[in-house]
Amino acid sequence: MNLILLSKEDLTGARVVITGRRHKHILEFLKPVAGSQLCVGLVNGKIGLGRVIAIDGRSVEMEVLFYKDPPRPVPGTLIIAMPRPLVFNRLLGHIAALGIKKIILIHSKRVEKSYWKSPVLKEENIKTQLTLGLEQAKDTIMPEVLRRMKFKPFAEDELPGIIKGTNAFIAHPESPADVLPRCVKGAFTLAIGPEGGFLPDEVLAFERAGCKCVNLGARILRVETAVVAALGRMTYG
Amino acid sequence: MNLILLSKEDLTGARVVITGRRHKHILEFLKPVAGSQLCVGLVNGKIGLGRVIAIDGRSVEMEVLFYKDPPRPVPGTLIIAMPRPLVFNRLLGHIAALGIKKIILIHSKRVEKSYWKSPVLKEENIKTQLTLGLEQAKDTIMPEVLRRMKFKPFAEDELPGIIKGTNAFIAHPESPADVLPRCVKGAFTLAIGPEGGFLPDEVLAFERAGCKCVNLGARILRVETAVVAALGRMTYG
Repeated sequence: MNLILLSKEDLTGARVVITGRRHKHILEFLKPVAGSQLCVGLVNGKIGLGRVIAIDGRSVEMEVLFYKDPPRPVPGTLIIAMPRPLVFNRLLGHIAALGIKKIILIHSKRVEKSYWKSPVLKEENIKTQLTLGLEQAKDTIMPEVLRRMKFKPFAEDELPGIIKGTNAFIAHPESPADVLPRCVKGAFTLAIGPEGGFLPDEVLAFERAGCKCVNLGARILRVETAVVAALGRMTYG
Repeated sequence: MNLILLSKEDLTGARVVITGRRHKHILEFLKPVAGSQLCVGLVNGKIGLGRVIAIDGRSVEMEVLFYKDPPRPVPGTLIIAMPRPLVFNRLLGHIAALGIKKIILIHSKRVEKSYWKSPVLKEENIKTQLTLGLEQAKDTIMPEVLRRMKFKPFAEDELPGIIKGTNAFIAHPESPADVLPRCVKGAFTLAIGPEGGFLPDEVLAFERAGCKCVNLGARILRVETAVVAALGRMTYG
C-alpha cells in the first residue's frame, strides 16, 4: 500500500479514523508513530498527506490534507473475454495499477458460462481488487467495470460507439496481421480474447465494428501475460 | 499447452511415448484420436508435428517430425531481485512465454533472505515452470536462470560485462528520469527491483556499471506487473 485510499464516508472534516484492513496494513508494514506522515488519497479525488494523531491496536487517527492531482488516467478502454476467476482477480489489480479506467468484460464462445456466476464478480470483490491496485499505484480514480454477457448485441450495437475516435485493436494470436504497435498516441481500445482466442466469427465482428486485428508477437500468450504486456506498450510514457 | 515439449530422452528414433503430466493434459484438453496431428517441439531444437499412433489411459504414442525453427529468441537479459516465491513461479511462466532466454536472480537489501531457501528455486521446479511457459508460447528454447546472492560482487564485477553492447536499463519507481523507452532496437538488459524498490546505493551501483535509470510511468507497479509490462514494451514487434 503506497497510498491509503479514503472515501468521503471515512472523513469527518479533515479527520479520519481507520479500522479494518487498512489499519492492519498500516500497523504491520508502515509502522507509523504519532506525527508520522502517510500518503493518502480520496477516491476519485486528490492525493495528499495524512499526519498520524493516534495509533493503537484498533485504529489509526489522522489529520488529512489533499492537494495534488492523481496521475493522469490512461485514455484506454480494455475489453476482455471473462477470464478464469483467479486470473480475473489478479488482472483487476494489474489493470488498476496500470491506470486503465474502463474495463468491459464480455462473453465469447470459449468463455465457460460458470465464470459469470463466480463470486469474484460481486461488486464488493471487484471494488476491493481495484482498490488494492490503486493503493499500489498511488492513484485514486476508481476504474469502471462493465459486463456484457451477450456477444452479438455488444459487438454489433455497442462496440462501434465505444471505439469511435480511438485507435482500436483486437489482439489475436498468430493472426497474420501486424504486431500491436508500440507508439499509439491518444485514446485507444484494446480487445483481448479468452484462453484459446476468440473464434473467427468473433474476430470478424470486431473487425466489422472497426477494430484492427493485430498479434502480440510470434508467441501465444496467456490472457494475464497478454493483457499486461499489451498495456505495457500502450499505457505509459 | 499449444506445443508438446519433448526432450531427446523421450525419443526412440522418430517415435515417442508420453506419460505423466503431458499425457494427462493431451487426454483432457487436446482429446486426440489415432491419426490426429499435434504440435510438438524438441527442447532447444525445432518445432514440428506429432501424428498420434495410439492413445489410452496410460500413454500416448506418436510419430514425430521436426522441421521448423522456433520463434527468434528475444535478445534481452532480465535481472530481477528475487521475488516472493509465489510471484517468482508465475513470473517464470510469463518470462518464458515472452521469449526471454536469460534471467538473473539477484539479492538486494529489500529481498527477504528466506526467499532464497524456498523450494521454488529447486532446479526441477524452475524447469517445470519454464516448460509450461514454452509450451504455452510454442517455443522450444529453454531459458537459463542464474542466481547471484551477493549484490556487491555481482554489480561491480559481473554486471559491466553483462550489459556490454546492450541497451541497459534499471527500472526504478518515481525516479525523476525518463520513462522506459518503447522503441529499443537490438540487445537489451533490464533490471527490476524488489517490492519497495532497490535502495539508492543499489541504484547507484547499476548506474555506475552503465545502466540508465528509468521509471515505468507515474504509477508504482508491483514486481509482477512491472516485469510483464516492461517486457511488453521491449520484446515483440
